[in-house]
Amino acid sequence: MTAAEVDAFLRVELPHMFNDDLTIEHADGRTCLVRQRFRESMLRPGGTVSGPTLMALADCAMYVVLLSAIGPVGLAVTTNLNINFLRKGRAGEDVLAVAKLMKLGKRLAVGEVNLLSGTSPDPVAHVTATYSIPKT
Amino acid sequence: MTAAEVDAFLRVELPHMFNDDLTIEHADGRTCLVRQRFRESMLRPGGTVSGPTLMALADCAMYVVLLSAIGPVGLAVTTNLNINFLRKGRAGEDVLAVAKLMKLGKRLAVGEVNLLSGTSPDPVAHVTATYSIPKT
Amino acid sequence: MTAAEVDAFLRVELPHMFNDDLTIEHADGRTCLVRQRFRESMLRPGGTVSGPTLMALADCAMYVVLLSAIGPVGLAVTTNLNINFLRKGRAGEDVLAVAKLMKLGKRLAVGEVNLLSGTSPDPVAHVTATYSIPKT
Amino acid sequence: MTAAEVDAFLRVELPHMFNDDLTIEHADGRTCLVRQRFRESMLRPGGTVSGPTLMALADCAMYVVLLSAIGPVGLAVTTNLNINFLRKGRAGEDVLAVAKLMKLGKRLAVGEVNLLSGTSPDPVAHVTATYSIPKT
Repeated sequence: MTAAEVDAFLRVELPHMFNDDLTIEHADGRTCLVRQRFRESMLRPGGTVSGPTLMALADCAMYVVLLSAIGPVGLAVTTNLNINFLRKGRAGEDVLAVAKLMKLGKRLAVGEVNLLSGTSPDPVAHVTATYSIPKT
Repeated sequence: MTAAEVDAFLRVELPHMFNDDLTIEHADGRTCLVRQRFRESMLRPGGTVSGPTLMALADCAMYVVLLSAIGPVGLAVTTNLNINFLRKGRAGEDVLAVAKLMKLGKRLAVGEVNLLSGTSPDPVAHVTATYSIPKT
Repeated sequence: MTAAEVDAFLRVELPHMFNDDLTIEHADGRTCLVRQRFRESMLRPGGTVSGPTLMALADCAMYVVLLSAIGPVGLAVTTNLNINFLRKGRAGEDVLAVAKLMKLGKRLAVGEVNLLSGTSPDPVAHVTATYSIPKT
Repeated sequence: MTAAEVDAFLRVELPHMFNDDLTIEHADGRTCLVRQRFRESMLRPGGTVSGPTLMALADCAMYVVLLSAIGPVGLAVTTNLNINFLRKGRAGEDVLAVAKLMKLGKRLAVGEVNLLSGTSPDPVAHVTATYSIPKT
């Protein structure tokens, strides 16, 4: 699926998660780039982006890249997600998720996601995640 | 801190995350039990509890048990979180997080969280997480 | 399979890994207990049990409990393993691995392993691991 | 430290782990490349490289890149390691570990390691690991 097709699919499939704050800027079956607009509600005290914000965005970006690879499979589910929090995300800045599929098998897909804040090249967090792909 | 003290601290410290849907039912410095009231917005299509809901609750429960052990340290931050999704959570049921500290060091605390849905003893997800404790 | 049957299977299947230093003390299809005899070669400088020793033992214990549940499936493979190192293991002491299946599905099995050193009830490391089960 | 200095340090510090099968081909304080010579004893049945072989090599490569960054700190210890097994490693081929530091803090260092088999650019496994750095 193209970025626009994944966007349309997720707005129907995951309306609570995939809202107007998220934009799929790119998706090509191997990588994707998802932008989450800055909101005050993302922040923890001290002005850093909260862990749950980053985990939800990474999970979403993994789903986007997987859908762009295998098409509209609503029942693919995350089986494992590992996140390392590396730096503070900056208040006022969008968060970018750069996802890459490391393996696309028949039953499992594994990817990694770098989460970036503002214009720094150093990720605020790094995620690996596994999706289970249902039989078709 | 007692469960009531942790509750009061988090309502001030993390108002976006720690809202009226969360109840600390128990916290004793080694374990805690946090209940998240069921909301339709927790669900993915197919009626299963979403991954981000479970990850956010687990992260919160780890923070609760850590605060109950070390007192009001607002700057403790998660450094790593690993989650295995095991079963579907049930629509209409609260989610319970049972957290346990496995290690409480001077610099790092490591714990595990079992996430339960309804009355089943089998967890819907299992989490391990590490918190970095700032110098005091 | 019983503990004795798993033992016989692994001596043939994994001769480089499953040697005379390992004993399956218990295996019942849901849990198992594997003992690794102390060797000087396990140690890092400072006298602590090395990470690779603990990771290899945990991987082995997960395989033992899985085999005890599903029978002699030589092609089951680990897909993910996460380990948190919690305390130093003690020189001169055997290492015990207590494994428990958290989920046994048709395609994936997920378990946790507590690694114990000597007589302390506090684990030296905690592992979660996922195995992919081939079609039969 | 240079690659040669790290090599000399590890031969003294970790003689059981850092043997003649390992070569540090590069280390520059941010990345490193470690080669492990093929041995039959690496293999599982079916001719694939075993999980413990890959985990031990990844742990070693993380230590190499960390030492190249911070100098001879014998007491740095792994606190967390997460591995995703992606493909079968090939019998007869050396295994290469390409490690990169993602974060180098005062107390914690976090890196990732891609494990490669033969000449394929697709990793056989991907690892993230955290090291705790002692006070100096």
